[in-house]
Amino acid sequence: MNLDTTREIDNSLSTTLQQRRQKLAELVDTPVILWSGESIGRNFPANRFPFRASSHFLYFAGLPLEKAAIRLEQGKLNLYLDDAPPEATLWHGKTPTREEIAAMIGADRAYPLVELVNHTANAATIAVQNYHTYQQQCQLLNRTLTPANAPTGIDLDLTKAIITLRLSHDRFALTELTKAAQVSIKAHQSGMKGTSQATTEAEVRGAMEGVIIAHNMSCAYGSIVTVHGEVLHNEQYLHSLQTGDLLLADVGAETPLGWAADITRTWAVSGKFSETQRDLYQVVLAAHDACIEKIRPGVEYRDIHLLAAQIIAEGLVNLGILKGNPDDLVAMDAHALFFPHGIGHLLGLDVHDMEDLGDLAGYDTERVRSDRFGLGYLRLDRPLRPGMLVTIEPGFYQVPAILNHPDFRHKYQKVVNWKRLEQFADVRGIRIEDDVLVTESGSEVLTAALPTKVEEIEALTS
Amino acid sequence: MNLDTTREIDNSLSTTLQQRRQKLAELVDTPVILWSGESIGRNFPANRFPFRASSHFLYFAGLPLEKAAIRLEQGKLNLYLDDAPPEATLWHGKTPTREEIAAMIGADRAYPLVELVNHTANAATIAVQNYHTYQQQCQLLNRTLTPANAPTGIDLDLTKAIITLRLSHDRFALTELTKAAQVSIKAHQSGMKGTSQATTEAEVRGAMEGVIIAHNMSCAYGSIVTVHGEVLHNEQYLHSLQTGDLLLADVGAETPLGWAADITRTWAVSGKFSETQRDLYQVVLAAHDACIEKIRPGVEYRDIHLLAAQIIAEGLVNLGILKGNPDDLVAMDAHALFFPHGIGHLLGLDVHDMEDLGDLAGYDTERVRSDRFGLGYLRLDRPLRPGMLVTIEPGFYQVPAILNHPDFRHKYQKVVNWKRLEQFADVRGIRIEDDVLVTESGSEVLTAALPTKVEEIEALTS
Repeated sequence: MNLDTTREIDNSLSTTLQQRRQKLAELVDTPVILWSGESIGRNFPANRFPFRASSHFLYFAGLPLEKAAIRLEQGKLNLYLDDAPPEATLWHGKTPTREEIAAMIGADRAYPLVELVNHTANAATIAVQNYHTYQQQCQLLNRTLTPANAPTGIDLDLTKAIITLRLSHDRFALTELTKAAQVSIKAHQSGMKGTSQATTEAEVRGAMEGVIIAHNMSCAYGSIVTVHGEVLHNEQYLHSLQTGDLLLADVGAETPLGWAADITRTWAVSGKFSETQRDLYQVVLAAHDACIEKIRPGVEYRDIHLLAAQIIAEGLVNLGILKGNPDDLVAMDAHALFFPHGIGHLLGLDVHDMEDLGDLAGYDTERVRSDRFGLGYLRLDRPLRPGMLVTIEPGFYQVPAILNHPDFRHKYQKVVNWKRLEQFADVRGIRIEDDVLVTESGSEVLTAALPTKVEEIEALTS
Repeated sequence: MNLDTTREIDNSLSTTLQQRRQKLAELVDTPVILWSGESIGRNFPANRFPFRASSHFLYFAGLPLEKAAIRLEQGKLNLYLDDAPPEATLWHGKTPTREEIAAMIGADRAYPLVELVNHTANAATIAVQNYHTYQQQCQLLNRTLTPANAPTGIDLDLTKAIITLRLSHDRFALTELTKAAQVSIKAHQSGMKGTSQATTEAEVRGAMEGVIIAHNMSCAYGSIVTVHGEVLHNEQYLHSLQTGDLLLADVGAETPLGWAADITRTWAVSGKFSETQRDLYQVVLAAHDACIEKIRPGVEYRDIHLLAAQIIAEGLVNLGILKGNPDDLVAMDAHALFFPHGIGHLLGLDVHDMEDLGDLAGYDTERVRSDRFGLGYLRLDRPLRPGMLVTIEPGFYQVPAILNHPDFRHKYQKVVNWKRLEQFADVRGIRIEDDVLVTESGSEVLTAALPTKVEEIEALTS
C-alpha cells in the first residue's frame, strides 16, 4: 500500500472502525484475530495477482494491508504488521510505517508480525481464502480450522457476530458503496455509448472496464458482457455483435477499500429493441420495478423473489408464451424455465456478500436452501432490515440446456406454447439489476441514476 | 474455456505442438508430465482470479485448459482432462469436450484426470505456482518436488531441456508475440492521446488497459503508469498529472494463449518535453538505439547491458551530471546511481520468461549473478541466439533512496556534480523499452511501430 491510497481517508475511518469493534465486543467475549492474506503469484512468483485482503479483515481493519493481522478484544485493536524492508523503497517507493498505519486505523497497539504468536490464546477467527495464510492461522492458533463456510465453536460464534454486523451497512460503508455504484454507472454509460462503434463483446467490455480502471477502482467480479446472456456466467468476450442482438452487461466496480457494486443492463446492439425484445424486456422490467417497490424492513426477501416469479409468469402468460394461471405456474416452477436464478443477493465488501461463509449469512437461522427448481438458487432468505444492501436482478433467458432438457420438456409440455416461444428467438438473455438499500422507511436504489426504461436506454445507445 | 477461444486456431497449433514435443524427446528420455494449475478464489471461492495456466504446460499443450495435465513421451502426447459436468452448461455454456480439445492440440490419447495416477511412473515435471496443484503433483508422483527454481535429478534435466526449447521462439510463438506487441502499441498510443484530457495516472491507465481488454487480451503484468517513474515497480495510480511532469507507462498485453509483450514509453504530460527532460531522454534513447543496433547472434547480453551503461555514463558526463572518464565511471558503477536495473530480460510466455526457474533460464551454465551494484539486477546473462526475444529498456531515474543514501553519497561524492543534477529536478524517471527479436542476421524490433523519438512522441501526445 502506498501512502497515497490513504490520502483521502479522514478520521471517519478510525471512528467507524472503533464503532464496529465496539459492536463486536458486545457480541463476542473471546479475543478475535483476523488475517488479511497475501497476494498470489500468477505465472511466476514476482508476477502477482492484485492483492485482495480478506473481507472480514477489511471490515475491521479498514485498509488493504498485505500480510497483516489484527487482534480485537473488548473494543481494543492491535495491529500486527511488518515494516517494509529499506531496500523495498527502490522498487515500491516510500510506504507508510506500521505506526503511521496504526494511527490511520486507530489501533491501540502495533507490533511486528512475529509478536502475534504471543497473543493468540483462546482467540476466535475465520479461515481465509489464501492457502498460505490459512496454514499460518492453523499454526499460530495451534488448531486445525474448519473452512469459513463450516465454522465450529468460538469461530462459529464469531462468524455469527460478524454476520450480524456486516448485514447492516454503516455510513462509512454506504459512502464507499455509493462511490462504487457511481463509477459502475459511468462504466455502463460508456458501454452503451460505445456499442455502436464496437464489433465484438470485448470492445464493449474494454469501454466499460476502462472507466473502472480510470477511477482507480477494480472489477468486483469477472464482468459478463455478452450477446449470449443465456449463458449465465459467460466470461468470454469473443462474439461479434450483430444488428439484431441484445447485449447483456453485468459489470461492477470495487473501491480501493474493497466495497462493491453490481449492475446489469441489457441493450440492443443496433440501439433499437425489436418488438419481441421490447415485449420481454418490459416483463423483466415490471418484475424489477415491483420488487424494488416492495422492499422495506420486515419483508421476506424470499417473497421478493416469489413476486418476481409471479410477475414474470403473468407477463409470459400475457405474451402467450406460458399458458395457465400465474399462481399455478409459479407453484410448479414454470417461471424458472426462463428465470432460473434467484432475484439477487447481499452486496457489500463481497459482490455476493459473505459468500465465503456459505449460506450462514444469506440464510436466516434454521433456514436451508429449497430443493425446488424455482427456489434452489436463491442466495438470500432473510427478513430485510435497515442498512441491508441487496441486488434486485430479475431476468428472462432461453437456455438451451433447460428448454431442450427432456425432463423439463415433459413436465412443462402443456404450459409452454413452444410455437409462440419460437417467435421470440431474438431474445436469448435479458437481465436488469440494481443495488437497493433497505432504509428505515422503505428503500433507496443506489444505482438509480442509470436508466432502465427502454426509451432511455435506446437514447443512450444510439 | 469456451469453444470460441479456439475458433481462430488452425492446424498450425497442433503441428507446432508436435514439433515442440519432438524436440523435447530428443533431449529427454523420461516421460514428462506437466500440470496446468487452476484458478484461485479472490475474496470467496466463486469469485476467482482469471485462470492463468502454467507457462510450461501452455508451451506444450497450447491451450489454457484448467485442471488439466499432459504426458509427453517420445513425441507422443496424452491429455488428462475431465469433461465439464452437464449442469455446468447452464452457467458457462457449451464447452468443448475432452475429445474435441484432444483433436485441437493433436493429442495421441485423451483420458479423464483420474487416469493420470496410472501413468506417472518415472515421470519428470516442473513444480507449478498453484499450491493446490503442487500438492497433487507431489501426491501423484509420490515424491516431494523441490520448487521450480531449484529442481533436482530428472526434473533438473527436464528443466534444462525446456529452457533450451523456450529460449528460441518458433513461428507460432512469434505470431502470438507479434499480436501481443501490436495491441500493446495501440494501448500506448491510446494512453499518449488520452493524456491531455486526463487528470490522474489512473485515467491514463484506463485508456491503455481498456484497449488491451477491447482486444480480448489481458495485461501480462501489473501496469506501471506513473509520474513517479523513479519508483521502479510503482503500482499505484493516484497521483494527479501536473503540467511539468513526465509520465512513464510500462504496459504490455498478453494473448489468450499466454504470450506477452512489454513496452515502456515516457512522455510529457503537457505534450512538450522541457529542455532538461529532452536532454536526459536523448541520453536514454541513445543507449536504447545503440543496444538494439548491437543485437545479433553470438553477442553477450551482458555486453549489451554494459554498452547501455557506457552510453548513459557518457551522456551524463556531456550534460555535466557525472564527472570523469566514462569507462572509469562504469567500472565503479556510477551509471547505476541513475540506471539501477538491468538492460532487460527474456520475453515469451512470461513477461520475465521462465523466471519461475530462477536464474536457470536467464543465466548460462556456470554463470551467477554479480554482486556489483551495476550488474546485480541483470536478469539475463547469455550469448544471444536466433529466435530469442529480449527487452531493451534503459532508463534514467532519480531515486531518493539511492541518491540520498550515505554510502552512495560518500562513494560517488566526487564523480557527481550534485549542483548540476539539481537543475534536472523535473526528471524523476525515464525508461524506453522495446521487444527485440534476435534473428539469423541481426535483430527485429517487434514494437518498432511505436515511436521513440521526442518529436514523434510529442506529436502523439499533443
